[in-house]
Amino acid sequence: MASPSLNAFLAQWATIADLGSVTALLQWDQETGLPEKGNGARGKALSTLAALRHEQMTSDALFDSLQAAEAEDQDEIGKGQLRQARRDIEQARLIPKRLATALAECDSRNLHLWQKARGENNFALFAEGLEESVALNRERAACLSPDGDAYDAMLNLYEPGVTAADLVPVFEELEGVLIPLLREVADSNIVVDESPAQGHFAADAQRDFAVMVAKQMGYSFEAGRLDATTHPFCTTIGANDVRITWRHQEDDFRPALYGIMHEAGHGLYEQGLPQEWARTPLFQATGLGMHESQSRLWENLVGRSEAFWDWAMPQFHQAFPEKNELTPRELYPCLHTCRPSFIRVEADEATYNLHIAARFHIERALFAGKVDVAELPELWDDTYERLLGIRPTNAAEGVLQDIHWAMGAFGYFPTYTLGNLIASQLYEQAEKELGNQHEAFRQGEFSPLRDWLRAKVHSQGCLKDTRSLVQEICGESIQAAPLLRSLSKSLERVYGIRVGASSA
Amino acid sequence: MASPSLNAFLAQWATIADLGSVTALLQWDQETGLPEKGNGARGKALSTLAALRHEQMTSDALFDSLQAAEAEDQDEIGKGQLRQARRDIEQARLIPKRLATALAECDSRNLHLWQKARGENNFALFAEGLEESVALNRERAACLSPDGDAYDAMLNLYEPGVTAADLVPVFEELEGVLIPLLREVADSNIVVDESPAQGHFAADAQRDFAVMVAKQMGYSFEAGRLDATTHPFCTTIGANDVRITWRHQEDDFRPALYGIMHEAGHGLYEQGLPQEWARTPLFQATGLGMHESQSRLWENLVGRSEAFWDWAMPQFHQAFPEKNELTPRELYPCLHTCRPSFIRVEADEATYNLHIAARFHIERALFAGKVDVAELPELWDDTYERLLGIRPTNAAEGVLQDIHWAMGAFGYFPTYTLGNLIASQLYEQAEKELGNQHEAFRQGEFSPLRDWLRAKVHSQGCLKDTRSLVQEICGESIQAAPLLRSLSKSLERVYGIRVGASSA
Repeated sequence: MASPSLNAFLAQWATIADLGSVTALLQWDQETGLPEKGNGARGKALSTLAALRHEQMTSDALFDSLQAAEAEDQDEIGKGQLRQARRDIEQARLIPKRLATALAECDSRNLHLWQKARGENNFALFAEGLEESVALNRERAACLSPDGDAYDAMLNLYEPGVTAADLVPVFEELEGVLIPLLREVADSNIVVDESPAQGHFAADAQRDFAVMVAKQMGYSFEAGRLDATTHPFCTTIGANDVRITWRHQEDDFRPALYGIMHEAGHGLYEQGLPQEWARTPLFQATGLGMHESQSRLWENLVGRSEAFWDWAMPQFHQAFPEKNELTPRELYPCLHTCRPSFIRVEADEATYNLHIAARFHIERALFAGKVDVAELPELWDDTYERLLGIRPTNAAEGVLQDIHWAMGAFGYFPTYTLGNLIASQLYEQAEKELGNQHEAFRQGEFSPLRDWLRAKVHSQGCLKDTRSLVQEICGESIQAAPLLRSLSKSLERVYGIRVGASSA
Repeated sequence: MASPSLNAFLAQWATIADLGSVTALLQWDQETGLPEKGNGARGKALSTLAALRHEQMTSDALFDSLQAAEAEDQDEIGKGQLRQARRDIEQARLIPKRLATALAECDSRNLHLWQKARGENNFALFAEGLEESVALNRERAACLSPDGDAYDAMLNLYEPGVTAADLVPVFEELEGVLIPLLREVADSNIVVDESPAQGHFAADAQRDFAVMVAKQMGYSFEAGRLDATTHPFCTTIGANDVRITWRHQEDDFRPALYGIMHEAGHGLYEQGLPQEWARTPLFQATGLGMHESQSRLWENLVGRSEAFWDWAMPQFHQAFPEKNELTPRELYPCLHTCRPSFIRVEADEATYNLHIAARFHIERALFAGKVDVAELPELWDDTYERLLGIRPTNAAEGVLQDIHWAMGAFGYFPTYTLGNLIASQLYEQAEKELGNQHEAFRQGEFSPLRDWLRAKVHSQGCLKDTRSLVQEICGESIQAAPLLRSLSKSLERVYGIRVGASSA
């Protein structure tokens, strides 16, 4: 039972949680329903909410209440609540109001500049805004960690406790395996015939089929919904209100299906948080790496398996009669291609991590002051040439492709690769404990895997950080071997190539 | 130009305006998109926002700032801003926080109780909650107007300055004409054949047709949107973000078309408020009566005219080929029926005001303490028998039909009748100034009327109250004669009956 002082603190926290919830709804609406001309007013409302939230989060009343609760004896959950709250409160209090406002205003301006720059394929339009954002974020890093490394302070915002020093060997190992792999694939002269995944797929039928899959995964539409947006995402508005979005291509069913499985994977994590923690500090995922592990696990390790398709194919035939002779075996290679590409969000399972490696190297150099914003386009292209063997021919397919920097989100990208690694680690561990899952998948039974994830990951909220949780669940630190083993299996089947030494 | 003290005040007011905007979005989403299980969290978020808004509205900092601005010389607009702000602030400061919270909690509970009671057709389930609501609202009235009449204090919330004493002669006149009219219609033995308006109307075609009409009226979908809900409404989320909703019947096109024209009429008012007043006290309609006049004018005086149908019919034929022989002349009687009915929202143009009269009498008796909540069902049925000549056989078609009391909105209903009166007054005045509009309608030209309304009404925000504005525009007080003249024209055509002495 929570102590009176803890209850008093949590009652104050609930207002902050509600302001976060309201902000999430405004952002969701901005992507799904906001009338074109309403953007100006929306920006102002969001900035008012940010200011109110910062005021509440940094108020002396809240801090006093936190200290009062900390001074009393609390149980493990209570201690976790206060630990997480202190982290969030301290971070907010370290940022002067002036800087918080400047960051918010800069992001709002930069989103526009970036859209314009990308549309006109002209990096120069974005350069000045990006420079200001980097400067402000270096100032933010100095506030958050006066004696520490600036880029580590950024990484810590998205995956608490993870540093560049942790990531360097990870990317070294991945590059050591994936760069030669790309060369081997090229040398094999095997080009996967992707026509089995192509054709004409009506939007409604794509949505209905993917919704059926998401329900089978366990994503609840009574506590969620699906809407169309330019870029798919998952957002939690509040307890039992976890929404996902999708987009589709009429000529290829993969982006919609795997997009929805990906977002539903995120959604399962959020829907699986302990409801009794709603509106408290612990009612959130532990970090973006762990979050991405959930989406990637369902998208890649479940959704691209032949066993999944053994179950799904009859329903796929019904949804798309044009494809009623397609077999899981014919489809398999289309789900496990490996080839260099310019655009991260369209990259395959294997090369995706090289896209992230490129961003990691570039962000580190930028925050170490080793490169200026003006030099980014060339550094970007050089890095792609080195890692993927291809050189972008313009900024839109190069340095301008991602929205993250325009939102001031530096240090966010590495969590994508952490997610890929952790997904494979968790999946291996799940099969160690539950046995091979393919027979269950063939029956459309995903609940053993989902319940295992719920118990091990979702139900923990942010009680433990990602690294501790991986260590506790898998008995090992975050590492690349399981991902490489998984890639090896599929690439051997499609290209006859075994992946790197680590997969031995 | 606004003075520095006014600007400082308005900057503080903007936060309050944004909190209102955010609240409106949460409520809109609750009707359109909220996942079923998300209602609990939504209720908490709304209550947090209400508390924050009350805190801001009653803060000494805001009040000091108001006084500082009032102490300086301001132009007419500035004075209007401060007058409106003082009204809103004083009202909020008169309500103790305890009462504000109790009212919000009572409404939230009562909405559930009422839904259950209506669903089970059992007034007893709602009686206790309603009693509490009446008690709390009488307490509220006593705070707002310690020496005044309780019901007048309620009326003043929705239509500033209007009192029961103003409304008594209005309803007397309407009842004096409409009660005998209903008898005459019954004696005429004419029953309108409504089959021209009935058949099979696909939902998409209904929406597309009504959207075409709304656009022609001038409602902007770049600053608005249309969604399906159980009950149609119009809500302003913020500047350039005015949303409307609709519902439809597959077997009758009238509810959807006239519902959308009605809401688009409200929407035109909100979209026509001066954008430069966004986030200030003046950026709102002047009262609910004036608001309703806008929706009713478009729905009834434009949309039910034969001239409107001369323009719309070819497009109606295209939308509904089944009806491709229907003429405006054949349709006309179906748009101007007159017959007693139990349900207000389904009532025709003429009898609608008797439904409102019933509620006015009952609310007055309730707030004067002349009747107890337990006696309401019988009083309701007696009043319907007296005014409409029919007696409800159960509570769902009687006292439980409206949501208003469950929301604590007492004194709201009379604004519906005021809206009907003002609609006819404005329309007569517009034709006095612009000439007969039917030729324009036949060409689908609604902009002369719309621009006139924009100039005379929409662009004024709440600078003047409804009564003053009607007096200024029409040179007369709010009165029933124009509405009765308009009813007389259509009812003479359909039933061969001239409406009352006042229509002479």
